Parts: sequence; structure tokens; C-alpha cells
Amino acid sequence: MRILVIHGPNLDLLGKREPEIYGKDTLDDINNMLKEEAYKRNVELDIVQTDHEGEIVTQIGKSSKKVSAIIINPAAYTHTSIAIRDAIEASSVPVIEVHLSNIYSREEFRHTSVIAPVSKGQISGFGSYSYYLALLAAIKVVG
Amino acid sequence: MRILVIHGPNLDLLGKREPEIYGKDTLDDINNMLKEEAYKRNVELDIVQTDHEGEIVTQIGKSSKKVSAIIINPAAYTHTSIAIRDAIEASSVPVIEVHLSNIYSREEFRHTSVIAPVSKGQISGFGSYSYYLALLAAIKVVG
Amino acid sequence: MRILVIHGPNLDLLGKREPEIYGKDTLDDINNMLKEEAYKRNVELDIVQTDHEGEIVTQIGKSSKKVSAIIINPAAYTHTSIAIRDAIEASSVPVIEVHLSNIYSREEFRHTSVIAPVSKGQISGFGSYSYYLALLAAIKVVG
Amino acid sequence: MRILVIHGPNLDLLGKREPEIYGKDTLDDINNMLKEEAYKRNVELDIVQTDHEGEIVTQIGKSSKKVSAIIINPAAYTHTSIAIRDAIEASSVPVIEVHLSNIYSREEFRHTSVIAPVSKGQISGFGSYSYYLALLAAIKVVG
Amino acid sequence: MRILVIHGPNLDLLGKREPEIYGKDTLDDINNMLKEEAYKRNVELDIVQTDHEGEIVTQIGKSSKKVSAIIINPAAYTHTSIAIRDAIEASSVPVIEVHLSNIYSREEFRHTSVIAPVSKGQISGFGSYSYYLALLAAIKVVG
Amino acid sequence: MRILVIHGPNLDLLGKREPEIYGKDTLDDINNMLKEEAYKRNVELDIVQTDHEGEIVTQIGKSSKKVSAIIINPAAYTHTSIAIRDAIEASSVPVIEVHLSNIYSREEFRHTSVIAPVSKGQISGFGSYSYYLALLAAIKVVG
Amino acid sequence: MRILVIHGPNLDLLGKREPEIYGKDTLDDINNMLKEEAYKRNVELDIVQTDHEGEIVTQIGKSSKKVSAIIINPAAYTHTSIAIRDAIEASSVPVIEVHLSNIYSREEFRHTSVIAPVSKGQISGFGSYSYYLALLAAIKVVG
Amino acid sequence: MRILVIHGPNLDLLGKREPEIYGKDTLDDINNMLKEEAYKRNVELDIVQTDHEGEIVTQIGKSSKKVSAIIINPAAYTHTSIAIRDAIEASSVPVIEVHLSNIYSREEFRHTSVIAPVSKGQISGFGSYSYYLALLAAIKVVG
Amino acid sequence: MRILVIHGPNLDLLGKREPEIYGKDTLDDINNMLKEEAYKRNVELDIVQTDHEGEIVTQIGKSSKKVSAIIINPAAYTHTSIAIRDAIEASSVPVIEVHLSNIYSREEFRHTSVIAPVSKGQISGFGSYSYYLALLAAIKVVG
Amino acid sequence: MRILVIHGPNLDLLGKREPEIYGKDTLDDINNMLKEEAYKRNVELDIVQTDHEGEIVTQIGKSSKKVSAIIINPAAYTHTSIAIRDAIEASSVPVIEVHLSNIYSREEFRHTSVIAPVSKGQISGFGSYSYYLALLAAIKVVG
Amino acid sequence: MRILVIHGPNLDLLGKREPEIYGKDTLDDINNMLKEEAYKRNVELDIVQTDHEGEIVTQIGKSSKKVSAIIINPAAYTHTSIAIRDAIEASSVPVIEVHLSNIYSREEFRHTSVIAPVSKGQISGFGSYSYYLALLAAIKVVG
Amino acid sequence: MRILVIHGPNLDLLGKREPEIYGKDTLDDINNMLKEEAYKRNVELDIVQTDHEGEIVTQIGKSSKKVSAIIINPAAYTHTSIAIRDAIEASSVPVIEVHLSNIYSREEFRHTSVIAPVSKGQISGFGSYSYYLALLAAIKVVG
Repeated sequence: MRILVIHGPNLDLLGKREPEIYGKDTLDDINNMLKEEAYKRNVELDIVQTDHEGEIVTQIGKSSKKVSAIIINPAAYTHTSIAIRDAIEASSVPVIEVHLSNIYSREEFRHTSVIAPVSKGQISGFGSYSYYLALLAAIKVVG
Repeated sequence: MRILVIHGPNLDLLGKREPEIYGKDTLDDINNMLKEEAYKRNVELDIVQTDHEGEIVTQIGKSSKKVSAIIINPAAYTHTSIAIRDAIEASSVPVIEVHLSNIYSREEFRHTSVIAPVSKGQISGFGSYSYYLALLAAIKVVG
Repeated sequence: MRILVIHGPNLDLLGKREPEIYGKDTLDDINNMLKEEAYKRNVELDIVQTDHEGEIVTQIGKSSKKVSAIIINPAAYTHTSIAIRDAIEASSVPVIEVHLSNIYSREEFRHTSVIAPVSKGQISGFGSYSYYLALLAAIKVVG
Repeated sequence: MRILVIHGPNLDLLGKREPEIYGKDTLDDINNMLKEEAYKRNVELDIVQTDHEGEIVTQIGKSSKKVSAIIINPAAYTHTSIAIRDAIEASSVPVIEVHLSNIYSREEFRHTSVIAPVSKGQISGFGSYSYYLALLAAIKVVG
Repeated sequence: MRILVIHGPNLDLLGKREPEIYGKDTLDDINNMLKEEAYKRNVELDIVQTDHEGEIVTQIGKSSKKVSAIIINPAAYTHTSIAIRDAIEASSVPVIEVHLSNIYSREEFRHTSVIAPVSKGQISGFGSYSYYLALLAAIKVVG
Repeated sequence: MRILVIHGPNLDLLGKREPEIYGKDTLDDINNMLKEEAYKRNVELDIVQTDHEGEIVTQIGKSSKKVSAIIINPAAYTHTSIAIRDAIEASSVPVIEVHLSNIYSREEFRHTSVIAPVSKGQISGFGSYSYYLALLAAIKVVG
Repeated sequence: MRILVIHGPNLDLLGKREPEIYGKDTLDDINNMLKEEAYKRNVELDIVQTDHEGEIVTQIGKSSKKVSAIIINPAAYTHTSIAIRDAIEASSVPVIEVHLSNIYSREEFRHTSVIAPVSKGQISGFGSYSYYLALLAAIKVVG
Repeated sequence: MRILVIHGPNLDLLGKREPEIYGKDTLDDINNMLKEEAYKRNVELDIVQTDHEGEIVTQIGKSSKKVSAIIINPAAYTHTSIAIRDAIEASSVPVIEVHLSNIYSREEFRHTSVIAPVSKGQISGFGSYSYYLALLAAIKVVG
Repeated sequence: MRILVIHGPNLDLLGKREPEIYGKDTLDDINNMLKEEAYKRNVELDIVQTDHEGEIVTQIGKSSKKVSAIIINPAAYTHTSIAIRDAIEASSVPVIEVHLSNIYSREEFRHTSVIAPVSKGQISGFGSYSYYLALLAAIKVVG
Repeated sequence: MRILVIHGPNLDLLGKREPEIYGKDTLDDINNMLKEEAYKRNVELDIVQTDHEGEIVTQIGKSSKKVSAIIINPAAYTHTSIAIRDAIEASSVPVIEVHLSNIYSREEFRHTSVIAPVSKGQISGFGSYSYYLALLAAIKVVG
Repeated sequence: MRILVIHGPNLDLLGKREPEIYGKDTLDDINNMLKEEAYKRNVELDIVQTDHEGEIVTQIGKSSKKVSAIIINPAAYTHTSIAIRDAIEASSVPVIEVHLSNIYSREEFRHTSVIAPVSKGQISGFGSYSYYLALLAAIKVVG
Repeated sequence: MRILVIHGPNLDLLGKREPEIYGKDTLDDINNMLKEEAYKRNVELDIVQTDHEGEIVTQIGKSSKKVSAIIINPAAYTHTSIAIRDAIEASSVPVIEVHLSNIYSREEFRHTSVIAPVSKGQISGFGSYSYYLALLAAIKVVG
């Protein structure tokens, strides 16, 4: 089983800035935690971080024959990217949407996810542990 | 560690009706799964199901000195109950919001949770497995 | 054939107050008229009045194996109760929505029924005669 | 007693198209059923079908001295015609609004009736049986 | 100078119904008063009343080479008819919009005129005297 | 008979600026025309121009025992001043609202008059001739 | 004179939680203060606290022959309960709406009270002293 | 193959007025061009122009057994006519919506077509050439 | 202790007009009642009435070193004046908002107070007695 | 004559996924069809597909001196990209907007094109044949 | 060159209150800084502060023949004053809008300026330095 | 001191197109002017132009340790890019938002900047001189 993990814009800055919102873990910490867990459960991971909406679209488009599930934190694109939504809808692979912070306790415009209606499910608010739960969910959904 | 699990209105009908939306597991199946997991992890569970908004408010009010976390599936009250929101806000106990279905791929009015802004986090879309992930999350948050 | 009749909040006050809106018949008058008609047509009636949204949800949930149709006047809950809507949606029994007054000629907030989209049909504006028509409709729909 | 029955635009096509929404009865079937019932109850019927909003306005205007009640299915004009609303408001005759389908379980724009606030009452969702109930209601209201 | 006067839907009922809103003058009274005034001022009048939106469109389309101004009371079509608006916009003749009642002190939906933005000016609220003022305005605008 | 004429903010600049919208007549031209007409018809005029919303309120408050009607061009305050609206509502004197330009063919925010619902009637779009028509209307309404 | 005091959902928790919003007084403190004041003024009090919307409806319905006024803090139900609104409207007893906090300086959804339009008056923002003022107001209104 | 071409309100004025928006071709020019093209491709055309919404509804209703496709320029009715929408929906014939001007670069209210959701496709902005493309599209869709 | 009482626009007309909304007491009656009460409680009052928004702003600005509290009935400016809101926000003195009528049972636009979010509390609906309660509240808040 | 054809995000997946919405033709099929047609009509084509909004902006910016027209299917960016809109507006080259599916019969958010107001015209709903019509339109517009 | 500087309501309180929003500089500090800079650049300044909307309108009206540019901080009137907007629009003098605070990072209602659309440009967020930049801008625009 | 200047999409076309909106200066003209000014004031500039939203995000992310301030003209991304907003919010560097044109006098959708709430301040409407003022502001803010 192979799972694609996509980290959206600004997530390379994790742990360095605004830790009161996003937590202290860096993106490397999260990726290492995920790799360890995946290894234990015999799952291979492809991990990407990009600030480009178009690149996320391309990654999803290319992945559909190679992976069994996608874990995505679309970050700022959560609220606006119909292009990513279309990529997910076009893909036959189940997608798990992840957020570090509880997006529903933040600014009004963060309460709407255009990605959520085409995802399998959503996990938000548990910091880096959201990714851990998403990995379990992805394995469950595929399995 | 003791955790309160609250199942909202109509959830006693789980597994019997509309399984294409809510899955085939009955409420007993879910409760038994949760109890098994809790037992393994040395956690005690209080489980309540009620169709009454006021009863949910009372349960949260009474629980705050006795439990370390609350897992709640507010079902239909998710979208309208400011009373439950106030009960959560008044409580010092972290609350995990759970949904069996992906509420964001259903009718427009189900896309807004008035509970979410005062919860610790939200998990939706994974059927009865949403509860399993919520149990892990609750333990993590408390721990 | 057995039909459940549910009268929502404040309807126990019928005939005593605001007769210019709701008419002069008391709830007993309406129930007696319904029972007579039902008796003529060989139909048994279960009749409930409650001010509690949760109780209406419970009644619908319990009724589904026992009755062939439900006649409901959700009164104030017409405009807000997703819980009752979910109970109806979960039920396999056809539901007829009744209103004594013409809800569309009253305040703006009374123009929207969250129950209507999941009901079989709606009858409003004919005072206690609305219930009579609803009984005919229920028998027709079941029959 | 004389009652005017008005069938709005596209209703001449009933029974031939989209029977899953509007039922299998043709307009002739409905009219014949109404005439039979009216005959039994000693009521005369004037029946009109037109695709023209202006014609409906004219018919209502002309009818007010001749009939005791109007049964109208304004079809598509339900949602937009202030001209028909004004004609009803100007008329001293009680008006019963009828719909074959449950307009509240269809597209959003069909949920609002500009006719309803000036009608005596509304019956929707029971197919051609809606007309039967409307006839009873009209006789009751006049009587 | 020749002026076209168009009376919209339901205006043939003037004076007979709802005099508390529209006044006691009949349409004939208004037309006679206008003819007298026009005669004094050496103006010829074409007067039309119709319940049909399409007929109003046709009348405006046909008139543009024959008349110097149009006085129109679009009645219910004031609030919805883009077809009449387009007819006015296509015409090179100045148009005066008239209302018997003060449309701004009535229901919300009567506060918007889709005709007004393409008219020369608007006069509302003075009963049949509104037409008198409109005649003066039309003569002034043309003159 | 005595009539109060109120010119709102910026109207002292009439004729000097933006003549393509408001016409070439100065405020003096309009006032002289009104005085001449009033003299012919044996009417006395009080004329005020002020940029202050509060001053308009005070003038209306003071006038009610002295004048038989008020002609007001509230200019920019048309769209926002509930204080002027309240002054008119509190007054027992009929009020005619006047606009030089057609406010409905200008910016969206100029389409709503908070004054109109409490005025007797409204005349807009005929330049300084709007005032002439308003004077006739005021005399008619009082007379 | 007898007055019914209704405390809505979560108010049994007063003084224990979020004192920065609701003050330090417990519900008992408030009730004792009210009883003392009532005793001084020769008024009898019935005091109820409930988390159930339906129970509030029932209490208002039952009270109307026994009490002269109602003081109600509907708490979270302030913003959503049409059922309580209907109960008040059906009752012939004047109702005073009370809020401990200034609901207009809190979240947007707390700015609208569906109860206020049918209450005699509203007092908000003075902590437990709001109840004291409400008692005076109730006595004044009845007296 | 036979195709019905419907020209909506005001289109008889084409070429004579507002050529900067709608182009210089008259309706006859367009009809002749269409006939020539149709003749070349062995297609018969029925062509109708009417200012009446009801007439368009009737034409669509009558056509469904006789024609293979409909090309319609609903003009002003594009934005408001649910009656035409229902006629199209009831018809089993594919419908091509045409506009001479680019309706999306004009007033806000012209940006919404209530016809579009039930049409096969839409072509707008190419003047009379829009009709030519629509003819090709109709032939393709039927073929 | 010194308290500033501000009466907004049109309040000088109290008791003379629309007594069914605002009561029969004149502004002098209210001021005398307040002065008597203040005298009993050893409080000095500064009382101002003005129709000018700017004057209210100036009064609040000047008062902040001289008074301990402000009682304000902003009347029509309640719903629109951000300038008064800013003056209150800039002031360090607690402000009590008063309304004679229940603003929530009147027109929609009166339901929103832009002053309320920056006031200490609000009292509405008790006629001139609202001012009496406000005086008690002001003394309590300062004390 | 040279024409630039731009295919937006996800369009490289055409024919492989969701053929019930977008048809069975692959992007290569469409490009080959376009090239053949262009060759017949002596037109040269530049064809680009990209998932990047910024790349579309750059392509339009670079093209303006080299091509006579642009055919663009902005796909998901249709509904959100002001950057592409600005690029088109800045360009002196006419732009034809193309959609494979009828965007007006899909989700609400697909009904608005921010590109349309600055395009020459729009063709939607005819599958790959939309491109063929767009090519004809482009040649006509340039020609 | 002569420039008019207008300070709107509450700005006389600058530096004394809420310095965390508006900075520590008093209005005198700002005026002195502006005068110094103006003197260096050979520009004369007229400076006005008023709490009255009407006074700002009058000042702009009177200034247009005497000054070359206007710098205005409309403060609270920024968001509501169509009267000031009209005064600016009527004036032939370029206007620079200034704000001390960043109005876009404050309450929602402060995000809209009705003045901005008719101003030359806007500078906000730099405290008293905003005025300095505005002076440079004014000189540049005139120059 | 080092300042990063970011020019958003389409700005490489400056001076060549739509000079009536954006002015005649090319991007090189603006950059040279900025460099000269910066040199005089001993400031180093990094200047970037890109059409890619993701690239702007990356540039801001990389810059935060190297520069003291950022001057950004986000162009079309001003109104939609939450990703750029998040990048600014995550950055500890003050950001000055610049616009050549007055965005508030253009289309409605250009009136909202999602960047403004997280910027230090905004300057718009002065053509290339806006950049000059922004440079002064940036130096002032840092200094």
C-alpha cells in the first residue's frame, strides 16, 4: 500500500512561526512521525510540500495509478481552490483532508472548505496528531 | 481516565435505516467497539444516547468534575444548538466532535456546525471508525 | 391501518388563545373530529401532544413499525428542527405536514419549513379542517 | 355554488411527460375526476388551462362576481407572478393554491410561492389527489 | 403631439376594489380626466389597458415612430418585467413611470422597479392625480 | 396655505457643478420659480437649505403647527437618515419627496429611500420641473 | 401579585464558570436577592431553572392563569426558540427579557433575540443586577 | 430533420435599435441566413418571434413531436421565466440557448439564465453568428 | 456623583405625537422625574437634548472628565451612528443605552443598535420608566 | 492567422475520467481535431495545457503580439481567477471562452465565470464540439 | 498652493485615548508637523476639525475655489456619509483620504469607505505619518 | 536596511496597456525610480515580478530573515489569495500594500483586499507615485 501525503502552501514554515496556532512540530517532525508509523504498518509514503496550487493539481493527477489513498492538508487553498477540488473529484483515489488547527474556531473565511465535499472525510484541530489519525483513517478506508 | 460519550438524536436508529449514509453498524456495535478499545487503554467510558437537546446540556453540565474529556456526536443539533455550544464553552473539559458521515458532502444546512468553534477538534466521514479515531484523539488530548 | 397524529408545542392551548389566528376549536375538538372520521374509515389513531422537540423525535423513531402514516403539526419546530426532519427521513413511514393557519401569510420566519422537503405533502390554512384533509390524504397515500 | 379551476402553464402536458414528478393522470383525468366530485356535491365548475400569465389575471378579474371560490395551480408562475397575486388580492373570492408535486422537495427556487400569502390555504404533494382535497377545502371555505 | 398611455395588469379593476390603496376613481375616470387635460393642451392620447406583459412590449415596440412620449403604469410588472424594460430601452421615446399608490410604503417586493432605471422619471403616491402630473411631465419633457 | 420647502445637503451648489446630472438651474432659479407659482396660487412658502441632518430634523419638528405641507429634497440624506424619517413620521403634515435626477438610474445605493415609506408621494427625474410638480401635488394633497 | 422567574439552559452553572462574562453570583445568590426584594414589595415568586426548551414552553403555558408577569432569561434559546416565542405570544401575561451579559457585545449570533419582539421590554448587561431591574419593571408593568 | 427557432421579446426590432449592442442585422437577415444554411444541410426550419412568454411555452409544448431540436433566444425572459424552463424540461427535445450579445458583460441581472440549467448548451456574444453556430450545434447534437 | 443624560433627535416632541408608541410623558416630565430621583440619591444630572449627531459626539467628548456615567437615548442615531459609537468607545465613562419603546418589536431596521456593542448595558420597552431603571443602573455601575 | 488555444487545470485527464460529464474524447483527440480544422482553414495553432494559473497569465501576456485570437477553457479557474481576467483585459486580442460541459447545469459555484465579462463570447455544453464551434467563432471574429 | 485639511469626528481626542489604536500624537502634534512640512514646500494649509457631518459638507463646498487639494480623515463618517461623498464628487478639487489606523484590520463595518470611490487615492495604517504621506501625495497630484 | 519589493501578476505589462488605468510608467521605470530613492536613503532593494501566486508565497517565506520590510502590489491576487495572506501573517516582517489605481473606484470585486487586514498599511491610487510613498512608509515603519 502506497499513500501520497500533500502539504500545501506555507507548511514548510511549521514549528517556526505562530506555534500558538499550529504547534511546535516542524514539517520534518511530522513527516518523520508519519514515516515511522507507515513503516510499522507496512505502508509506503510519497510526501510533497509545495506553495503552488497548480503543482498540487498536477501531483494528484499523476498519482492516481500509483497510490491507494491521499492525505492532504490544503492549507490556504482549502477555502478557494476549485482546481484542487476538481483534481480530487477526477481521481478515483480516496482523499483524507487534514488540518492542524481547528479551522472552525478561526476567521469566518476559514470555516468553508471547498475540498471537503469531495473528500472521504476530514480531521481537524489535533495539531500534528491530526496527521497520525489521518494515516490510520487512510489505511482503514483503503483496507 | 474517564470519558463521556454522547450520542445525539436519532442515533439509536443506527444500522437499521439509511445504511448508505450512516453505515451498517448499530449503536450497540459502536459502543462495544469503544468499550473494548477503552478497556485496552485503561480508560472508563460513560455512554449516553438521548433525543433531547436539554438532556445533552444537562449531561455536559454534570460531567465536568467527573470526566477528562467528552466525545460527542450532536447529530441534528450540530447545526442549531447554541445551548449545547454554551454548555461546552462553560465546561473546562476538552470536547471532540464526531460525525459518521461527511457532513460537508450533504445538504447545505449540514455544512455549518455551531459546536465546532468551541470543540477541540472534529472528525467526520469515516463511519463508526470516526468514533475510534475520536477515542484516540481524546486520550491524546487529555494525556 | 394505524396512523400517528403528532401535535407540537403550544397546541394544547388551541381554542383558548389567539382564536383569530388558530380558530376556536380546542385540541380536544380536533382530536374528537379525527377519531370519528377515523372510526368511519376503519383507521386506528395514536394521538400525542408534546412541547418537547426530543419527544417528537422519539415518538417518530418508535412508531415506524407500528403505524402506516404520520400526520404532524410541528408548530414552532416547523421552522428550525433538523432533528425532527432527520427522524422523518430515517422513518419509512409517509408523513403529512399540517398547519392550522396559512404560514405563508404570517411573519417571514414562518415561511420556511425544514420539515416540508422530507414530507409527502403539506396542507395549510384551513383551520381544524386542515387535519381532516390530512387524514384523507394519509389514507389515500397509504392505500 | 360555482368554482373556477385554473391550470397554469405546461399543465396541458400532464401525464405525458415527467410522470415520476407529476404523476400519470392527464389533465383530462383530473378535470373529469373534479367534475364528478363537483356534480355529487352540487357544485358547478368552470375550468381553464392557459400558458399566459396575463390570461390568468384576466380570468380572475372576470370571475369575481360569478364564482364563490377559485382553485388554482399556478405552476411556474407560482414563484414569480406578482400580477396573479395582485389579481387574487383584488378579488373578494377565496383562493385555494394547489400543487401536484411537493414543491418544497424540489429546486430551491420552487420553495417560494408569491401566491401563498394572499391565498386562503395551500395543498401540495399529493398528485392529482391534491385537486380533490382542494375541492373539499373550497366547498368548506365557502360553506 | 401624441402620447401613449399604458395601463398594466389589474388596472381595469380600479375604483371597484381596494379603494383604500388605489383610490375611488375608475380607469374610465382617469382616462377621461387625461383626455380633457390633453385636449386643453392640444395633445392626442392613445390609451391601452392590458393584463399581458407581452402586449405591453408589443405596444411600446409599435409606438416608437408614432408618439412623442409614453406614460406607463406597469402595475405588478413594475417589479419583474425585464421584457418591458428592454422595450423601453430599445425605444427612442421618453417614458414616464406612474403609480397610484406610494409603492415604497407597501410590501418590500414593491420597493424595486426594474422599469425605473430606463425611465425618464417616476411619480408615485398621488392616486389618479399621479397621472395628471405625469401628463404635465411628459409634455414638458417632449417640449 | 403655507408650505415648507427643504433643500438638503450640497443643493446650494446646484447649477454650478455636474449640470449633466442635476441640470443648469441654480437653487435661486428654482426658488424663484416656486415663489412665482405659489404666489399665483395664493400659497406662502418657507424655504430652507442646510447641509445639516439635525437642522432638517429641527425644521420639520418646528413646522408642524405652521405649515400645511412639506416639500423636501433630502439629497444624500435620502438614503440613510432615519432621524429625518422619524421627524416626518412624528409630524402630522403631509410630505412630498422630490429629486432632480432619476435616482433609480444612478448608483445602487441611491435606489433606496428611507424617507419614501413615510412620505405621501415621490417625484423624481424631471430636473427643476420636479419641484414644480411637487408644488402642484402639495396643493392637491392639502386641498 | 405573583411573578414567574424562568432561568434557561446552563444557568445552574452561574458563578462557577466564565465569571468574566456572567459575574460571580451563583443562581442561588440571584434567587435569594430576588426573593428578598419580592418579599419587601409583597410579591410572590415562582422560580424555575431548566435546560429543556420544551419545559420552558410548558411552564409559560401553565402559568398564565396564576401569575401577573414573567421574568425570563432564555439564555441560549434567546436566539433560536420560536417555540418559546409562540408560548409568550399565546400568553396574556407581560414578559420581561433579562440577560446578565450585554449580548450585543458578544458573538454576532447572540445579537438577535427571537424572544424580544413579543416581550414587553428587555434589560441586558448589568450582571445579576439585570434581574433586580427586571423585578422593578415587572411590578411597574403589572401595577 | 426539422428544427424550431424561437426569437423572444423585442427581437423583431433587431438591427433598427441599439446596434452597438445587438449588431446591424435585422431579424429577417438572421432568418434568411439560417434558412440558407439549413437548406444546404437538408434541415427544415420553423421560425417564430413573439413578445409573449406564454406563447413561447405553448410553442415548445406543441413542437415536441414535430421537431428534433430547438434553438431559442429567450431575450429578456432568459433571466426570469420559469415557465419556459419548465416547458423545456418537460420536452424531450434538446434545446440550444443563443444570445447575440455577451450577456455576462452587461448588467448584473443579465448574468443569470434560468433557462441554461435545462438547455443542452449555450452560445453567446457573437452577434448574428451566434445563431449560425447554434444551428451547427443543433445538427451535431441531433445527429 | 454626576451623570450626563443625552436625549437624541426628535425626543423634544415626546408626549405630543405618537403617544401609542412613545407614551404620554413629555421630555420635561421625564427630566423632572429623573432630577427628583437623582436628588434623592445625591446625584447631579446634566441633561441635553439635540437633533444633531455631531453635537452628541461633542457632548460625550467633553464630558469624560466631568461625569461618572452617561445615560443616552440615541433615538434614530441608534441604528446608524458610528460617530457616536466611536465617541463612546473613546470615552472611559460607562454608558447606559435607553429606549422608550421596545425597538425589537418595530421595523426591521430598528432591531440593530450600533451603539449597544460599546455600551455597558441596554434597557428598552418600559416607556419613561426605562429612564428610571437606567438611572438605577448607572448608579449601580459607578458605585 | 495564428490562434492560441489554452487548456486549463485537469484537462490533461480528459477522456480518462468522469466521461459522463466531460465526454470520451482525450485532450489529444480534441487537439488533433482542432489542428485538422485549422489546417483546412489556413490557420496556425499554438496549444498549451497547464495546471498553473500563473502560467496561463504568462501565456496570455506573451501571446498578444503573436496571435490574432485566443480560445481558452479556463476549467476550474473560470470561477475564481481575477488574474486571468486581468490578463485578458490587458490583452488586445479577442478571447473565446469554451466549456465542454454545460456549467450552468452543475454545482452553484460553477455558474459564475469571472472570465466571461471580458471575453468576446462563450460556448458551453457541446463536449469537444464546443472547441470546434469556438474555432469557427475565433476565425469569424478575427476575420 | 493652498490645501484644506479636514479632521472628522472625535479626532480632537487623539493622543489622549486609545493610543494603542490611533497612536500617541495629539491633533496639535499632527497639525504642527503638517504645517512645518507645508512651509518647507511653500504650501499654505487650512485646517479644520469638526464633529458635524454637515459642517464637513459645507467646508468642502466653500473650499473649491480657494484650494488646490483636500486631505480628509473622515473618521466615523468614512463608512456612512453619502453627503460628504456628494460634496467631494461635486467639487473639482482632488481629495486624498487618510486614516491613522489600518481600517481593514478592524471591525467589519470599518472595511467599507463610501468616500474612497470618489477620492483620488487612499493612505491608511501609518499613524500620524499617514498625514505626512498624504501631504506629499496632494502636492504631487496638484503639481 | 533591505527591503523586498514584490510585483504581482500582469504587472510586467505596465505602461504598455490600459495606461488610462495604470499610468504610462513601465515596470522598469518604477523599479529604477525605487532604486534611485533607495540608494539615496541607503536602503537595498530585492525586486521580484511573478505571475504565480505560489511563487509570491515562497518569496515571502524565504525573505523573512533577510529583509526588514516588504512592499507588495499583489494585483489580482489582492482579492482572492489567502495563501499570500497566510505567508504575510506567518512572517515577522512588516508589509506595505500598494496599488497603482484606486481599487475602490473600480469594479465591486476589487474593493475587497484579503491582504489588507494583515498588512501594516495600504496606499492606493497615486500611480507609480504610490510605490514612492510606500518606500517612505516602509523606511519609517522599520526605522
